[in-house]
Amino acid sequence: MSDSSNLQATQRSTIRRIPKRGSREIELIYSILDEALVAHVGFISNNQPVVIPMAYGREGDRLYLHGSPVSRLLKTLERGVDVCFTVTILDALVVARSLFHHSMNYRSVVLFGKATLLDSEGEKMKALKAFTEHMIPGRWQDARIPSDRELKGTTVLSLPIDEGSAKVRTGQPQDDPQDYSLPIWAGELPLKLTAGVPIPDTQLIPEIEIPQNLVNYHRGA
Amino acid sequence: MSDSSNLQATQRSTIRRIPKRGSREIELIYSILDEALVAHVGFISNNQPVVIPMAYGREGDRLYLHGSPVSRLLKTLERGVDVCFTVTILDALVVARSLFHHSMNYRSVVLFGKATLLDSEGEKMKALKAFTEHMIPGRWQDARIPSDRELKGTTVLSLPIDEGSAKVRTGQPQDDPQDYSLPIWAGELPLKLTAGVPIPDTQLIPEIEIPQNLVNYHRGA
Repeated sequence: MSDSSNLQATQRSTIRRIPKRGSREIELIYSILDEALVAHVGFISNNQPVVIPMAYGREGDRLYLHGSPVSRLLKTLERGVDVCFTVTILDALVVARSLFHHSMNYRSVVLFGKATLLDSEGEKMKALKAFTEHMIPGRWQDARIPSDRELKGTTVLSLPIDEGSAKVRTGQPQDDPQDYSLPIWAGELPLKLTAGVPIPDTQLIPEIEIPQNLVNYHRGA
Repeated sequence: MSDSSNLQATQRSTIRRIPKRGSREIELIYSILDEALVAHVGFISNNQPVVIPMAYGREGDRLYLHGSPVSRLLKTLERGVDVCFTVTILDALVVARSLFHHSMNYRSVVLFGKATLLDSEGEKMKALKAFTEHMIPGRWQDARIPSDRELKGTTVLSLPIDEGSAKVRTGQPQDDPQDYSLPIWAGELPLKLTAGVPIPDTQLIPEIEIPQNLVNYHRGA
């Protein structure tokens, strides 16, 4: 990946529907991965598809996966089964004159690959830093770092970012030509994941200020 | 489903990790399905897991699926392959004193089942109404209804809501006892998908007001 600005084209990652919305440009893929907070990770368990929300972090061309269902996932992944890693950021509702042409503006990434278990504590520490900085940039400096016991008890998966694509829809509705004269409102309703006021833990010791990276929290550029 | 307030327990829908966060209560499951906007639908294609974001609607104990990748999905689903339908609503970042205990508050639903193609135009019309009202309550009255031609050209899948579960995390971080005395801020940072100011289509005919269901748009109760 490091010597290329695009992901490779493969059969399973080819965008069949509305291919003009697809992209393999790596900077776009990274920007979507860095802005989203939760991935939906699909794998096959007992011949059934299973899709689980997971937290993740990125470091260069690797993703680190971490999440509560890791025990079930690990039983599968240790045997080397493929995963599909998908993130979606919703940007707007697309409101058309016809019900049929209602849509959404979004940015999504779908990646394919084999996830592997991290085994060294050094790698796990790097992965935990990637999780933390993905969720709250700067938090790594602000909180207690993981102990040896915590690292030993942590299971983290690593997935290469080398096969997949982004898909993006932007802009106005696309109504049928004869509908543009209808007296019906049409346009976009922007949507954004926004942070509210931080809620202090009830057991917080006195006189600790809310960190600036939480006061000014936002996703994306 | 109609005579029960809980989904059935099955092997593949059993929550293995932190089962106290799990629920099969149907009203909770419906409330999460109705608030989320995008589902991540997993299926098996050429022995690989594939996870695709899709729009959806609910009518009673059925989901209707609709989305751009429908052509690839249909090739698989027409053969009766199982899907896993997952939605996740992110409610807060959980900020702990230790990096290890950082987490997220969320509400998710994972459903399993076989999706089937709708074939009658009457069913498709009901499904399109469910999509529209899921996305923007009241919009069905405000825009041009689908034509016969549009209904014929639409592919919609139906999935029963009868196997699966919800999972919910709420509340404060759970730090280790000895960390509560550390001078580190901890608590929750609430997150919510919020709507901005509607952007009119550049070809909108004059003097059409923005509908109230877009001015006051929000998800959830």
